[in-house]
Amino acid sequence: MNPTHAEQRQFPVLDDCLQLGGITLPRLAERVGRTPFYAYEREHIQTRIELLRNTLPPALHVHYAIKANPMPALVQMMGLLVDGFDVASGGELKTALDAGMPPSRISFAGPGKSNAELRSAIAAGVLLHLESEEEMERAARIGDLLGLTPRVAVRVNPEFELKYAGMKMGGGARQFGVDAERVPAMLRKLGALGLDFQGFHLFCGAQNLSATAICEAQRLCLHLALRLADNAPAPLRVLNIGGGFGVPYFPGERALDLSAVASGLHELMQTLDAASPQTRLVLELGRYLVAEAGVYVCRVLERKLSHGQVFVITDGGMHHHLAASGNFGQVIRKNYPVAIGNRMQAGPREVASVVGPLCTPLDTLADSLELARAEPGDYVVVFQSGAYGLTASPIAFLGHPPPLEVLV
Amino acid sequence: MNPTHAEQRQFPVLDDCLQLGGITLPRLAERVGRTPFYAYEREHIQTRIELLRNTLPPALHVHYAIKANPMPALVQMMGLLVDGFDVASGGELKTALDAGMPPSRISFAGPGKSNAELRSAIAAGVLLHLESEEEMERAARIGDLLGLTPRVAVRVNPEFELKYAGMKMGGGARQFGVDAERVPAMLRKLGALGLDFQGFHLFCGAQNLSATAICEAQRLCLHLALRLADNAPAPLRVLNIGGGFGVPYFPGERALDLSAVASGLHELMQTLDAASPQTRLVLELGRYLVAEAGVYVCRVLERKLSHGQVFVITDGGMHHHLAASGNFGQVIRKNYPVAIGNRMQAGPREVASVVGPLCTPLDTLADSLELARAEPGDYVVVFQSGAYGLTASPIAFLGHPPPLEVLV
Repeated sequence: MNPTHAEQRQFPVLDDCLQLGGITLPRLAERVGRTPFYAYEREHIQTRIELLRNTLPPALHVHYAIKANPMPALVQMMGLLVDGFDVASGGELKTALDAGMPPSRISFAGPGKSNAELRSAIAAGVLLHLESEEEMERAARIGDLLGLTPRVAVRVNPEFELKYAGMKMGGGARQFGVDAERVPAMLRKLGALGLDFQGFHLFCGAQNLSATAICEAQRLCLHLALRLADNAPAPLRVLNIGGGFGVPYFPGERALDLSAVASGLHELMQTLDAASPQTRLVLELGRYLVAEAGVYVCRVLERKLSHGQVFVITDGGMHHHLAASGNFGQVIRKNYPVAIGNRMQAGPREVASVVGPLCTPLDTLADSLELARAEPGDYVVVFQSGAYGLTASPIAFLGHPPPLEVLV
Repeated sequence: MNPTHAEQRQFPVLDDCLQLGGITLPRLAERVGRTPFYAYEREHIQTRIELLRNTLPPALHVHYAIKANPMPALVQMMGLLVDGFDVASGGELKTALDAGMPPSRISFAGPGKSNAELRSAIAAGVLLHLESEEEMERAARIGDLLGLTPRVAVRVNPEFELKYAGMKMGGGARQFGVDAERVPAMLRKLGALGLDFQGFHLFCGAQNLSATAICEAQRLCLHLALRLADNAPAPLRVLNIGGGFGVPYFPGERALDLSAVASGLHELMQTLDAASPQTRLVLELGRYLVAEAGVYVCRVLERKLSHGQVFVITDGGMHHHLAASGNFGQVIRKNYPVAIGNRMQAGPREVASVVGPLCTPLDTLADSLELARAEPGDYVVVFQSGAYGLTASPIAFLGHPPPLEVLV
């Protein structure tokens, strides 16, 4: 039997229509005013964060990585639910500050920060995740220039390798962070430069669905951080162990076992409390907080037959949702979960391909997938679209109007 | 020996710096005001079109497919050099009309035209490339509503297959055009609906570097069109045989043999003149006119060593140039031709990876490529970037400023 998509049960169905934020899809589309659009559900995000709060150690700080979805209304709402924000650019820093998050709870990571971004971050007083020795020197110079002491953490490229399900999450040459073996020397220099050392940031790999792999990576990160802290010019106040919690996108993938991850984190907190009680442990989540709360909605323009195959042609496509078209880091194209949002249960079904209006065969939202038989005017819904959707897409491609976004 | 990139000799070098439009790169960067930016050279585009005019049959019409690069200044210039424009959306239609191209020389193709786009195109009086029977019906209804007779061509999905170098350019099920076997019935209906039949559009496959494959496809297209014309409600006035002329991007690829393609087209024109003298043959080119005239320029922020490998970290990346990062329709990532634009010939060389500022390993502009040894402040140039660059990229990804564009 072919692998199937994980069931999409996060939204109720009423009168055969998907409901988002308690609004039936055709009515929501009228309210939005035109298709295509992205819709993100507040309640799903709130429920997800409550689940994390009830499952993870209470002392653990949960940060939202804005890059997953920087829609201002969503970031604003998120600010009331999480303990801090992580930003990846000067643009995201502005979004974070505009949302009212105190600078002390914002961290800024990224391997290519410009001097203008460093100035802005130091002026704001946020925590800089230093990605290299040279960035440290630049931050120190800018701090001197502004008469401010930059708050910094060191992003470490761990020396260990973690092999699991073909996933390699550390150990090699990369553009992120500082090779662990060079961190002690860097910390000495950091102290000499008078920077305000706060802690470490360790990246453990993205979109991981294996609780075992995540727990193992987190454990190794903690031990590495505690060892490196011996050389630090100040106590370890913050340890950001990244996130990387995955969501099931493709056939055969199943949801992460959160309780297993939580067990690992409870153990980790005990170790940390014993070894370094003043350290705040930070989990940085983006995709896991918002991906499943969002859908991309477009409308059927035509049904088309070609050599016996059905093509459902829509007003949306890869220019709005690159990841669903298979062109965002995928080697082999796989289908996202897709449904006809106003024919959720009843009526005949068929195998069809869902394509967009662009003059390229890359513009495919579903390739030979079983769906309800769609007619012009129907709504195509792409699930798991709340993260890395609109902003990760080439919206100007071929000159179509951009999609709208709503938080419901 | 490993395959190498085709030599990039289209721009001169002065004082070890690349010159674009007669301006040395560092001065051009000052003029633009910030990096990253795209620069497109007028002279290269003019020379390319002159070459086509001198090589191809004089009666052949050359159209520019705006989707390759819709920068308004470039489209404006192109309007003086080509015989018509092809547009792929209502947005591109506006660009074409704003550039002053007469509607009679504009054609509009695309499998998912909205009713609003059809209205706009019919009101403008441009040639609609009908992609389905249903689109024909919609166009007829809108024509009635507006009291206008839509000018139409039928886009045909050819029934033949063309196997060459693993490239399949027709014969299967697809979202483009109407299966050839259904075209005769569609033409009868088209006549009955009173639409103004102008001709056919046949797509022969994109980014093709084989003159043999292109000539063979064009020959088959012509014969298919002449055969289908027997059933047409009016004489065949226009035959658009697409384009698909490729440019060399990756190691091992070499430029298309234009003279071989021209020979084929001269023969084709003779056949057409004998069989259907009133027919205008249209070649629709996008990439081939502009790709090699353009570069993407970003600036080195830092050099970084990780486990002995050199990373050149720049202020530009995949958010500006998705294709160069390998995430636009490529299955296996390959390097675009890249150089350090202010160290074109002198100085030491090294193997380095060029990466951008984004927090993802996808953000790679060159992977372990031999380059001049770059220092902070140097200019990284990605060649072959005049087509499907900025508009095919997720510029909002991670909140960095968009790149600028200049025509020099």
